[in-house]
Amino acid sequence: MASARSVGKKLTIEGETFSIKEATPDNFNGLDFIIFSAGGSVTKELAFEAVKRGCLVIDNSSAFRMEDTVPLVIPEINGSACRKHQGIIANPNCSTAIALMGLYPLHKAFGLKRFFAATYQAVSGTGAHAIEELQNQVHAWTQGSEMEHTVYPYPIAFNLIPHVDSFTENGYTKEELKMLNEGRKIMSHPTLMVSTTCVRVPVFRAHSIAINAEFEKPVDVAKARAAISAFEGAELTDDPDHKIYPMPLYYQEKVLCGVGRIRKDMALENGLSLWVVGDQLWKGAALNAIQIAEWMHKDGCLKKNTKS
Amino acid sequence: MASARSVGKKLTIEGETFSIKEATPDNFNGLDFIIFSAGGSVTKELAFEAVKRGCLVIDNSSAFRMEDTVPLVIPEINGSACRKHQGIIANPNCSTAIALMGLYPLHKAFGLKRFFAATYQAVSGTGAHAIEELQNQVHAWTQGSEMEHTVYPYPIAFNLIPHVDSFTENGYTKEELKMLNEGRKIMSHPTLMVSTTCVRVPVFRAHSIAINAEFEKPVDVAKARAAISAFEGAELTDDPDHKIYPMPLYYQEKVLCGVGRIRKDMALENGLSLWVVGDQLWKGAALNAIQIAEWMHKDGCLKKNTKS
Repeated sequence: MASARSVGKKLTIEGETFSIKEATPDNFNGLDFIIFSAGGSVTKELAFEAVKRGCLVIDNSSAFRMEDTVPLVIPEINGSACRKHQGIIANPNCSTAIALMGLYPLHKAFGLKRFFAATYQAVSGTGAHAIEELQNQVHAWTQGSEMEHTVYPYPIAFNLIPHVDSFTENGYTKEELKMLNEGRKIMSHPTLMVSTTCVRVPVFRAHSIAINAEFEKPVDVAKARAAISAFEGAELTDDPDHKIYPMPLYYQEKVLCGVGRIRKDMALENGLSLWVVGDQLWKGAALNAIQIAEWMHKDGCLKKNTKS
Repeated sequence: MASARSVGKKLTIEGETFSIKEATPDNFNGLDFIIFSAGGSVTKELAFEAVKRGCLVIDNSSAFRMEDTVPLVIPEINGSACRKHQGIIANPNCSTAIALMGLYPLHKAFGLKRFFAATYQAVSGTGAHAIEELQNQVHAWTQGSEMEHTVYPYPIAFNLIPHVDSFTENGYTKEELKMLNEGRKIMSHPTLMVSTTCVRVPVFRAHSIAINAEFEKPVDVAKARAAISAFEGAELTDDPDHKIYPMPLYYQEKVLCGVGRIRKDMALENGLSLWVVGDQLWKGAALNAIQIAEWMHKDGCLKKNTKS
């Protein structure tokens, strides 16, 4: 389903062709669950109509993430929070989800106190039009023409823009604050401290994050690596002597996030530095939403719609 | 002067044509000072020959930076250290120089205790062949061909490589350790703590650095901005409401480094977050070397060569 504009378009997925219907309340009747992937305003308008009709909504927007009645879920971390849903489950912010795939196993091992994160965010996080803008700028550059831009306030090709989402009063952007607020909620860790700088980079796909993290307990690099390896949402990509570290070009369309460059932090008492990379369209968005439905199906808490 | 390979080539600079001579000890005779910009091994071979002949060497390599007898200088910070030279003065690492243009004025205002830095380093830091490699990869990409690479271990176009200089035993790269060691020496601050992650990004020119810094005294954003504005090596580029922040595309061939995104750090007691951008071929290399000579000339400590 999509907006009226797309009605009648065909989509072929693994050989099967689907015809797009309009996302209207009536079309929600009888569905067990719906994955919403629209802007916050459309979501707010339609999600309650779906819930009224007995559908579970798994929502990819930020509209409901911080509502007390809405679980915010990464299945590998807090899947069981799904059981307490009241009709809506929220999917986390992309950078937060990817950072936590590296941080959560370390939190379990050593007790996370605070972390500093600098993000390197791909243009696909902004949408298809941003991918096209980077493509067009690169083509223009090879032809010696001017790099035009409408999606971002400045050219992104061969540039960096330290501005993702809008600025808030304290000088952080909303995107930067999500790392704190969503991180606390997903890990049930209300005293966690976080400081983030979010930067858009000329990469098409997959976000990367440099992290300095401080823990309650003494840390150990071998134990940290073992914790990452044992965690089902991440893979250890960490052998610097053989030039093995995660990079966005190699984390496109990967289910797992990659964690590397793990070392004792030189400026923190019980600290680790690490580098996490993940496909923000997959683990940072669509894949996590599907994994929520899968987790619930396995758990038995994904119910049949009995309203119609 | 250059290696034998370039002898006889002509260089035209502001209308005047120069013919390249070989960099041999004899050719150093009578020169007051020489700016060395070669690899560490050539520097080690030739610098002492120049010193023996009464020339001051201002060296851009890392060969002598940490020697006790060699001043490591950013003129705006520790110009007076030049007076104690014993024939060689070292020019700092590019990322360190740029980071300190933001940090030093804040250190003076609030007393720096430690900082965390994540770098976004342009390919020109590696040299002309790396610029060409990124150009070739981008052209190949627009033509649908494979992106070949010989300079970096992986393609850098549309990618990020968290590996600058070689790895050391503690898991940090040499480049990452320079931020600590050179930072301490330049600011005469032996207890400073630093943790850095250095990342190569697909940008041609100008390095960017995300910094979280902790201070002894309570911090204030307005005072921090005033300190940056008052510092002769940096300019304040910090008005997020009007989308004003430093970006590498606009800091090419700029004498001053740009400092922006200044805000109270959310995870440090007396902390500031900031974003610093500077042309690493200028302030991070050639410009700083020239500024050292200029500072010494003004100060009167740049002596005539009296040996020949």
